[in-house]
Formats: sequence, C-alpha cells, structure tokens
Amino acid sequence: MTEQNGKTTDGKKKVCIVGSGNWGSAIAKVVGNNVKSLDEFETEVKMWVFEEEINGRKLTEIINTDHENVKYLPGHKIPENVIAVPDLIDSAKDADIYIFVIPHQFLPKVCQQLVGNIKSTALGVSLIKGFTMKEGGGIALISSEVENTLKIPCAVLMGANIANEVASENYCEATIGINNKDQGLLLKKLFQADYFRIVVCEDEDTVELCGALKNIVATGAGFADGLGYGDNTKAAVIRLGLMEMVKFCEAFYHGSTQSTFLESCGVADLVTTCYAGRNRKVAAAFVKSGKTIEELEKEMLNGQKLQGPPTAEEVNFMLKSKNMEDRFPMFTAVHKICKGDLPVEEFINCLKNHPEHM
Amino acid sequence: MTEQNGKTTDGKKKVCIVGSGNWGSAIAKVVGNNVKSLDEFETEVKMWVFEEEINGRKLTEIINTDHENVKYLPGHKIPENVIAVPDLIDSAKDADIYIFVIPHQFLPKVCQQLVGNIKSTALGVSLIKGFTMKEGGGIALISSEVENTLKIPCAVLMGANIANEVASENYCEATIGINNKDQGLLLKKLFQADYFRIVVCEDEDTVELCGALKNIVATGAGFADGLGYGDNTKAAVIRLGLMEMVKFCEAFYHGSTQSTFLESCGVADLVTTCYAGRNRKVAAAFVKSGKTIEELEKEMLNGQKLQGPPTAEEVNFMLKSKNMEDRFPMFTAVHKICKGDLPVEEFINCLKNHPEHM
Repeated sequence: MTEQNGKTTDGKKKVCIVGSGNWGSAIAKVVGNNVKSLDEFETEVKMWVFEEEINGRKLTEIINTDHENVKYLPGHKIPENVIAVPDLIDSAKDADIYIFVIPHQFLPKVCQQLVGNIKSTALGVSLIKGFTMKEGGGIALISSEVENTLKIPCAVLMGANIANEVASENYCEATIGINNKDQGLLLKKLFQADYFRIVVCEDEDTVELCGALKNIVATGAGFADGLGYGDNTKAAVIRLGLMEMVKFCEAFYHGSTQSTFLESCGVADLVTTCYAGRNRKVAAAFVKSGKTIEELEKEMLNGQKLQGPPTAEEVNFMLKSKNMEDRFPMFTAVHKICKGDLPVEEFINCLKNHPEHM
Repeated sequence: MTEQNGKTTDGKKKVCIVGSGNWGSAIAKVVGNNVKSLDEFETEVKMWVFEEEINGRKLTEIINTDHENVKYLPGHKIPENVIAVPDLIDSAKDADIYIFVIPHQFLPKVCQQLVGNIKSTALGVSLIKGFTMKEGGGIALISSEVENTLKIPCAVLMGANIANEVASENYCEATIGINNKDQGLLLKKLFQADYFRIVVCEDEDTVELCGALKNIVATGAGFADGLGYGDNTKAAVIRLGLMEMVKFCEAFYHGSTQSTFLESCGVADLVTTCYAGRNRKVAAAFVKSGKTIEELEKEMLNGQKLQGPPTAEEVNFMLKSKNMEDRFPMFTAVHKICKGDLPVEEFINCLKNHPEHM
C-alpha cells in the first residue's frame, strides 16, 4: 500500500466508524477483524469517539491502549487496528466508507461538521434505527438526511442485532439495504462474519423503515402483555403490526416489496423487539402501573427515551394528513394510548374490525 | 325450518364437529354460539364424542347436561345447542359441514367409517395440524386424505390458536385455506367471532403446510434456546426456518404465494410455537438433559408424541429423494439431531452457510 498526502493510491478503501457506543463498539469488532484479511480495505479503521473521562483516563486512550470500550462494551476486545480518534474531522478525513452508528439526535450536528470535510466519492452506511422528523411534521429517513446533507449515497444495515450478543459472536443475521448492487457486495464483505450473516437487499427504504416502525408494534405488544392477554393475542398483535408496516411502506414509499419483510430487518427484528425489547417492557409496565410513559422512561430507562411513542406520533401525523387512520388501527391506537387520549383497556377493541379481516 | 327424513329443505346447513378434545371443545363454543344468530346454519350442532367414563358418568351425558367438557376443556361452557353424540355415524349423518378436529392418527379410521354415510354435497374443514404419511414415504396433507377418502372438498383452518385462550375469548386470528371463494365466506361466517378473526386465503395447501412445518422450526428454536444462544440467534433460527418453509412449499407444492406466510397460519403461528410451544420446550430439554427425544416425550408429555421430529423425518425423506438436503440446512439438521446422527452442538454450524446468505 502506498500513501500520498493521506490518500490511498492503490484503491483500498478507508473505513471510518462514526460512533463508539454499545453497537458502534460491537460493529468495530466485526469490521476491524474483517479488514485484516480483505484486500479491498485498508487495515487501519478509524473510530470517532466522543471523548469522556473514565476514572481519570480518556476513553480514547483506554481504547487505544487496552483495546476495550470499558464504558459501552465492557468485556469485549476491540481489534488493535481500530484506532479511537476524539476529533470528528480527524477521524473522518479521507475515508471512503462512513459507518454511522450514533444516537439519532446527534446526527444533524455530526453531518453539519462533516460537510466540506469528506470525499465526494465516499459511501455512507447507517446503522441508526429510527426516524428524523421533517420540518412541518412527518418522518424522514436517516439515510436521506445523510444523503441530503453530505451529498453521498447512504445505505443502511438493520436486523435483529443486540450489540452484546454480536460482540459475543452469537450467530445472527442482518440486512443491508442499498440500491447499488456492487456497493452492496462491497459492504457485505466489510460486515459479514461467520457468526454475522448478511443479506443484501435493494429495497433500501423498506429495510430502514422496518427498523423504526417495529417499535410502534412492540409498544402494542407490550400493551397486550400488560393487559394479561396470552400467546394467541400477542401473535395477532405482532402479525397485524407487521401488516400495518407493509401497508405503511406501500402508502408512503415506492417500490416496497413484500419479501423484504421476511428479511432479518423485518420479521426477525420485529419478533425480537416484541419479546425482548424495552418498548415492550415499558408498555407492559404502563398498563400495570398507571404511570405515564415519561415517568416510566425516567424510572426504567434512566431518562433514555423510548422510540415507539414518538415514532407513533410522527406516523400518526402522516396518516392523519392523508385521512388514513382507519386503515392503520394499531398504529393509531398506540399513538392515542401513549398520548393519554385513549384508555389502554381499549387497545384490543381497536383491532376487532381490522381491515385485514374484511 | 322444515325437515323431511332428517334432511333440511330450506337450505340451512347442518354442522357436525368430528372430535371433542381441547381444541374441538373450544371450537364448539365458537361455532355453537355463532349458528344461533346465523340464517345459513341449523341451530343444532352435533359433536362426535369418543365416549369415556368420568367419575362414573358418561362424558356425552356430562356435556349434554352440564354443558362442559370436564375432561378436555374444564371451566368453559359449551353452548346448549351443541349436542354430544357417542356414535360417529349418528353424529355425522345428514350433515352439510364436517369440522375435523381429532388427533391425526385417528383420521384414517374415522374417514373409513364415514364412507357411504355422508352427503355427496358436504364440505369438510380440517383443524388438524400435521401430516399423514404417504405409503412409501413422504408427507400427505390431511385435507387430501379427507378428500380422497370421502370424495368431498376439504378446507383447513389454521392459526396461532391455543385452545384455552380461544375458549377464554382472548382476541386472536385464524386463517381458512380454501380454493372456493363462496364456500370460504360461508366458513368465515361459521367461525368468525368478535374475538376470533378470520382471513380466508385461497392458497389452501400452503395454509395447511405451515401448520405442520412450523414444528420443525420450533424444534430448532428449542435447540438454540437449550444451547444458550440469545435473542439474536433465536430470531435468525425462526426467520431461516420461515424461509425454508417458503422454499419447501415452492419446491413440492404449486401455486404457493409469499403473502400466505404473513397470515396467522404462517408467521403468527410460527412465532407462538417457537416461544411457547412444546416442541420448543422438549428440544431445549433435549440439549440440557442429554436424554433422547423418546425419553423426554415420556417424561414431559405423559407419553404424547411431538410433531416436530416425525415431520422432520418425513420432510427429510422428500428432500433426500430430490437431492435437496443442502438447500434446507435447518430442516436437515433438526432431523439428523433428533435421530442422533448429529451432535446438537453442531446445529448452529449447519446454518453458517445457509443458501439465504449466498
């Protein structure tokens, strides 16, 4: 490999991981190990780390000497070729591939800082689940925000991927959503390991939408659990939620194909979230405690925010604007219950005349 | 309503429920209540009950006086218009609709007894999950066995339907698989209640196949649980199992459509079975105990048989005969593990090069 002014001349791609939380650190382990044996990529991977002090030491220093993110992914080694960098621009300059894996509220500021400091030929891939909100209401895809701000294409990687389990090398799958097939195969090489299996899917918007919409369904599944319904009802809630996800993608996005919902980003991630996720857990507690969602977030999530309720609100804004609430009785009921406009005991009644049964 | 020689002359359909176990009794409650207010059906529903003595009383007498199946569905009232009949031919004669809901090993004998004793215009609907076995190996659909023996069409009703929860009127869904649209709508009227929501699907074979194939996947999900893998891996096992169900229907049955797998008979029943079913439970114990499946059936199921292992065996016979084992690594691994031909610790390794990831 030769370098001139920090730029590779032999076509090897430089990878930058923008973020270093739980999922960012887990993916750094996967990607860092992969690039060691792949000709397509440079061996050194930069990881932007929001600097913090841990017991008097800088987090970047801990990662670069001890090769462990002791705060967000303790107990797992990050490969030595992953270099933690505290300055965003330093970490990002000259990279060919950006892996965005930060809490979605930080994305606008990060993108703004990157404008003018990245290659025009770069490729982004977002691992961020959720939406951003459009001015004036409604949802916007995070990949679109990256594309619009940085003027580079942005793929997504979604799936049933609890970070600690990926870091433990437990077998799982993920879906890469990307419109460009060749770039999709390149990203598959970057991410796939024998325990982390990748399917590339060209239905990019749907892959990303699944990751956000599932949280509405998981909130509904939590309501059903909290209300004491059994396995049959929960299965119906999950299935009807999946059908509303399908219909929502059809109504608001073009080119959605049903088979995408059978990928890891769809049914697999949905099921895991509805059985093991925090939206489900808090929603179940909401029924039993009589407290508000905000109170429960403070008590149960240390102040972190759930994604189900705000996603339901933004989706409801879009449904209302097209007079479509009736066609999405679950999405609508979840929103109204979270807002306090409908008693949670009415949740199942709202599904009794679901359009799927007409 | 007028009657001549036991035959209705005003077009009202007589319904006979062939079976009175846990699920049969629950469905008797649904159907018995429905027909009271529907013009299309006679109010009296006959239910064939395999006679047993319970504390010195006949089960048919208990059902007809106390209106409760104290042995198989205790705690739930069966409507008074459902009449328990101990003689199969008596219960079945002159009926227009037969609801088959018996353990599948009893079906051949029951059908043989009915030959020559039923109307040629009758319609069957099977609620029996599972396969029968073809002479010479491989699987045959239960609905086909009814059709071939009785020379009447036979629909199916499948879904995520634990009998006690349906009897408790917990909200759930089911799928009716039937090729004839008008007859489908008639059956929908017969079965649908405000807590029991029906979707009619013309892809009849797939609806029925899902109900049997899911037990192979649930056995695999139990192995993953028993081996201590987490939520990611379980989600991957469920999804890859679903994809093998899709591929199996494509390979061996015609006209299968992907959307059928998104119905209650598909993804909903699969998920419930993989989280709450007995195939999962015994398979998890298989890993931890080191005992054989047969030993665990005796210990955990009071001698009742699991459906996953024999289904895996028959499916394997079909896959082998077409040299297709490689395309179905999960179905194949489940079979080999149940047979003792592969250590269960190898289960996840068998999925590492799954065709879905090529």
